[in-house]
Amino acid sequence: MQLKAYAILGAFVLGATCLWAYVRPSAAAEERRVVRLAELEIDSAQLGSYKAALSDEIETSIRVEPGVLSLYAVSVKGHPEQIRLFEMYANPAAYQAHLETPHFKRYKALTQGMVKSLRLIETEPVMLGSKLK
Amino acid sequence: MQLKAYAILGAFVLGATCLWAYVRPSAAAEERRVVRLAELEIDSAQLGSYKAALSDEIETSIRVEPGVLSLYAVSVKGHPEQIRLFEMYANPAAYQAHLETPHFKRYKALTQGMVKSLRLIETEPVMLGSKLK
Repeated sequence: MQLKAYAILGAFVLGATCLWAYVRPSAAAEERRVVRLAELEIDSAQLGSYKAALSDEIETSIRVEPGVLSLYAVSVKGHPEQIRLFEMYANPAAYQAHLETPHFKRYKALTQGMVKSLRLIETEPVMLGSKLK
Repeated sequence: MQLKAYAILGAFVLGATCLWAYVRPSAAAEERRVVRLAELEIDSAQLGSYKAALSDEIETSIRVEPGVLSLYAVSVKGHPEQIRLFEMYANPAAYQAHLETPHFKRYKALTQGMVKSLRLIETEPVMLGSKLK
């Protein structure tokens, strides 16, 4: 009888450990995410070219870099030359790797003369809620 | 022989139409998305309570509202009282519906005395790139 109780307890502990191992990485992964914001002002005369270069860079990054989760670019309503970026990376290493990619360097070189001002904002996640998993 | 050529052409047109119908709605859906940004300054003494109320509101919105796609809350590094929100809704109706929900109204009432300043920024999407679909 006591042996059976130990067996049940053992199975329970094993099950709980497996469950923990299964659940834990996703919670930990979310904690390591890096979110960066950027505020840019673009030369109005070159806005079309800038948007094309930016869209190209975003499309390539999402497609080829496993650690680039989201790159959202919007403009302020009524001020199309004011661009805001919301960037989410899986972890700090993915963020650093992104900065070294040929497509990111190409985007920087292409748009150098189009960007009138650039403000980068490092952040700490508070709550990253999304249906998109 | 001519009949067979017409049959092949017909099948091709039908196939192309089905493919278009399958692909098109998702592209159109993406175009209707609403992105809103918010910049808040929170009373430092009430930051813990504010974050709890905000996290609660985000968790509920993502869980119960089909049209709330993402609600990302971050703080500016080194300035925990400066909160930035990135909000993405499926379409304008989903955004309007969100403002009328009991959980959003509860969050607004709860945090009224905690928010020192609030700037809402309406936007136009330029490129919304994400692995999270």
